[in-house]
This record gives sequence, C-alpha cells and structure tokens, in this order.
Amino acid sequence: MTLPLPYLTLAQAPLTCDIDTVNEFGEHHAVSIPAERALTVYVDKRELVTLMTLGAHPELLVLGYLRNQRLIESVHDVESITVDWDVNAAAVKTRHGIEDIEEKTARRVVTTGCGQGSVFGGLMDEVDQIKLPPNASITQSQLYSLVNTIRLKETTYKSAGSVHACALFACDCAEPEMLLFVEDVGRHNAMDTIAGWMWMQLEKSANGANPVFYTTGRLTSEMVIKSAQMGVPIVVSRSGITQMGHQVAQMVGLCAVGRATNKRFLCYSGSDRLLLQP
Amino acid sequence: MTLPLPYLTLAQAPLTCDIDTVNEFGEHHAVSIPAERALTVYVDKRELVTLMTLGAHPELLVLGYLRNQRLIESVHDVESITVDWDVNAAAVKTRHGIEDIEEKTARRVVTTGCGQGSVFGGLMDEVDQIKLPPNASITQSQLYSLVNTIRLKETTYKSAGSVHACALFACDCAEPEMLLFVEDVGRHNAMDTIAGWMWMQLEKSANGANPVFYTTGRLTSEMVIKSAQMGVPIVVSRSGITQMGHQVAQMVGLCAVGRATNKRFLCYSGSDRLLLQP
Repeated sequence: MTLPLPYLTLAQAPLTCDIDTVNEFGEHHAVSIPAERALTVYVDKRELVTLMTLGAHPELLVLGYLRNQRLIESVHDVESITVDWDVNAAAVKTRHGIEDIEEKTARRVVTTGCGQGSVFGGLMDEVDQIKLPPNASITQSQLYSLVNTIRLKETTYKSAGSVHACALFACDCAEPEMLLFVEDVGRHNAMDTIAGWMWMQLEKSANGANPVFYTTGRLTSEMVIKSAQMGVPIVVSRSGITQMGHQVAQMVGLCAVGRATNKRFLCYSGSDRLLLQP
Repeated sequence: MTLPLPYLTLAQAPLTCDIDTVNEFGEHHAVSIPAERALTVYVDKRELVTLMTLGAHPELLVLGYLRNQRLIESVHDVESITVDWDVNAAAVKTRHGIEDIEEKTARRVVTTGCGQGSVFGGLMDEVDQIKLPPNASITQSQLYSLVNTIRLKETTYKSAGSVHACALFACDCAEPEMLLFVEDVGRHNAMDTIAGWMWMQLEKSANGANPVFYTTGRLTSEMVIKSAQMGVPIVVSRSGITQMGHQVAQMVGLCAVGRATNKRFLCYSGSDRLLLQP
C-alpha cells in the first residue's frame, strides 16, 4: 500500500517589485528588487515560527523546514500545507501531531545562515549517525557542466539581485541534470525548499542516483549539516567555507567544493569523491 | 552619579585557520578559511540562545544581541558578560534579571538574515515608534570616502573570504571617521556587535553626531529595522535591498544606499538625506 503524500496548495505571489532609485548622477531609475515576506507557520493550529521568504515555493519551504529541523520524521505524517498570502500564513495539518513539540523547539541555535537561522535542537546531535553513500562521486567535467547550467539560468538574481540560489542535480549521466532550481532571500530557505521537494518524490530514484547540491551561498556548518541530513554527499558553492562547515564535511565524508565559477574551483573536503581530469 | 557599565571579558580566539585544498589542476594548496564557532549565551544561568560566530568580539556581540532583541532596555542593567571559549559559553549577569523573559522569547521570527536569524517578539512591533534624527545627512563625497575606507581595510575577508563586514562611521566632518569595523560569519552578528559597542559609549557623542552604517550584506527588513532601532538614519550597503527592507526604510525615513562600490551607488530610500554632488 502506498502511503499518501501531503496535499500542498500552490500559493502564488509576485517575486519582484519595481522601486524608484536615484543613482550617482542624480538620475531616477526604476529598479527591480526581490520580494521579502513573512510567512507564519502554524502546525495543527499552534504557531511555530515566522519565516522571511521570497515566496516562490512556500509549501515546499515549510515542508523542508519541518524536515530539516527534524520536527517531522516522515513526509507521510503531513496531511496538508495550506498557504494563504492574504494573511501570510502557512497552516500545516499533521496526521498524528508532533510528539514532544515543546521539547523539540525549546533549544534555539541561531546560525550563521543567510536566511533561516535557527535549527531547533542540538545542531550536531545527529551528525554522528549520518551515513553518506560511499561511492557517490562527480567528475571534473560534470562539475563544469553544472556550474555552466547555473550560469545560463534566467533568474530573479539577474533581474533583481539580493537572492541566493540552490539547485539539485542528478549526476548519474555524463551531463548532470538539474532537477530543481530555487531562489530565496535566504540561502537556507532555498535549501529547505529543495528538501521539501525531495520529500515529495515518492520514488527515491527521482532524487537522482547521484545527487549533488549547488548553492550560491557560503558553506557554513548548517548548510553542510543540512546537505548531509538529506543524504547528498557532494555540495558545490560559488562561495567559500567556514571552519565548522569544513569540520562537519570531513566528519561525514562530504565532498565540499567552493569558489566554483567558470573552470575554477577549490575542493575543501572529500576530494576522493571528485574525479579530477586536469 | 554615573551608572556603571558592564564588565566585559576580552576573550580571544583565532579568527582563521588553514586547510588543505585541491584546485582544478589537482594541485594542493593551503587556504585560509574563517572560524565559525558556537557561543551559547546564558542569562543569569538560564540558557538563551546559541550564536554561531567568527569570535572576534564575543562580549560586544552578546551585548548587542540582547539590545537588538530588545531583551534588555539599558546597558546599565548588565553587570557582566564573561566569555570562555574553552566551553563556548557567554555568561551574562544582569543586575535585576530580565522581566518576562519567557514571554519575550516565546515568539520566533526566522529572518532572511545572513547570520543571526531570530528576532524575538514582533519584528515590526516597535518600528512605528522609531524617530530618526530629521536632519542627518551624508554628502556624495562623504559616501565615496566611506566606501574607499572600507576598500583599503585589511580584513579577514581578504585573507579568508566568507565573512560579512559592518562598520560604523561618524559623518560630522568632511572626512567620515570609521569608529568601528567588525567582521563575522553572519552579517547580523557584525551589526549586533556594533550595537553592543555603541551601548558601551558612555558619552553619546562618541557614537558620532551623524552616524552612518556600512554593511557588505543585503538590506533585508531585519537589517533596516536594527539600524533604525539603533538610531542610525543612513545605511550604505555593497549589496542590494529587499522589498520589505525598502518598505521599512521608507516607513521610518531611513536613507538606504546600495550597490555602493567605487563611485557607483543606488539610493533606494530617503534620498533627501543624500546630498548629491553629481
């Protein structure tokens, strides 16, 4: 018997708006800027958190948030997520409630994340238990192809700036396939949205046999932990890494590649997963 | 009678570390990356929050965090802040406790901030009450001078990347004076550290008669709100602005300048405070 997936609304809201600006010559120009809106999440009518988001995929964001905060163990525990931008609210209905919700949300970690900050509970508590697929790897030419795919993408960033992007690639073939591309005002939101999307894939194989994350943001501890939690053993960033991000990556055997632009990059950790073709 | 300021330790920790990397040619190189460490804040022995920080000014960060979260009303309410990196803890001792601490920390807003995420309590609750000095302004040449001062600064960013910077300038003279420069893995941490420093200035004038913030980070709602809360009516960013950041800036009459590099910029809001000399 197949367990049902949650019902998700498809709430829409404008992602950019135009404002009047004055430049260095005193000239007025209309400029696009990204939206930023509050989304208050209620779980079984109990207020949980307010996320500040661009608003592109609010239902997947909320689902991935619940997953990455480890508040919900299985996607099947969620009956529905209803987002209403008129009241800036996301109503999550669970099938059986969340056990120990008070306890789970009691500890507050405010992270270095751009975007959503707090991971409830001990940040490192479950890192020890993570087992990443030992043989997952990426070739240098797959890496270049992936970076180039991102470069060519039409994005809110190109039109309005000030957003971070995340993408999920399947690297089982010579040409990496981009499964999902998400932008948000916070890079954690973008990553959580991908986590939500991955949870919605009934067939695990839809997540790609050899999944690779791309992010424009820095690889801080929380970003690396989230990737590992989602079973993605390779992360590529346009930006750099922090010491704790590096430590966690080494601990779990995650391949962390940074400064990835054009044909340049630095592999910070797990270089055995990177098949160099210099 | 002068009320006493809090006693602050001066805990030190390395801000960068070297790791081994592999580049696109398969060459190994040592590269500097910024530290990222957990700092758990205890207020009167009660655990409040864990901040992920670079660790440059942990005591001022904690003080500014308490201020910007509006958990403490006056700097004189804090007796001491003791940071011990051996146990990654900051012990805050207040003179009279924090009233309604349970209630004040009950609501959780996870913001788009790079860095510290949550602002306890209603994000916008107090924005209405903010009165910024009506005549504060910055000239175009002061703006250029300020951006140039930042450009010339020796920074952790230049040596290790992946950090945000904030600075506080006094713009009462033709040449803006940089009062404080702070880097952190999160831009909110950097801003909170400046808030802590400003609180420690017994003489208000030490904050500058015409204070201006600089940040490398985006002007999201929370960044603009924090600046306004601290009475700083002009914010300059290397990056852009979000819709909500723009809305708040307009609401409180804050001058928000973005994309400020070399001799270029865009004034998003409050252009009456920007004295153009095109």
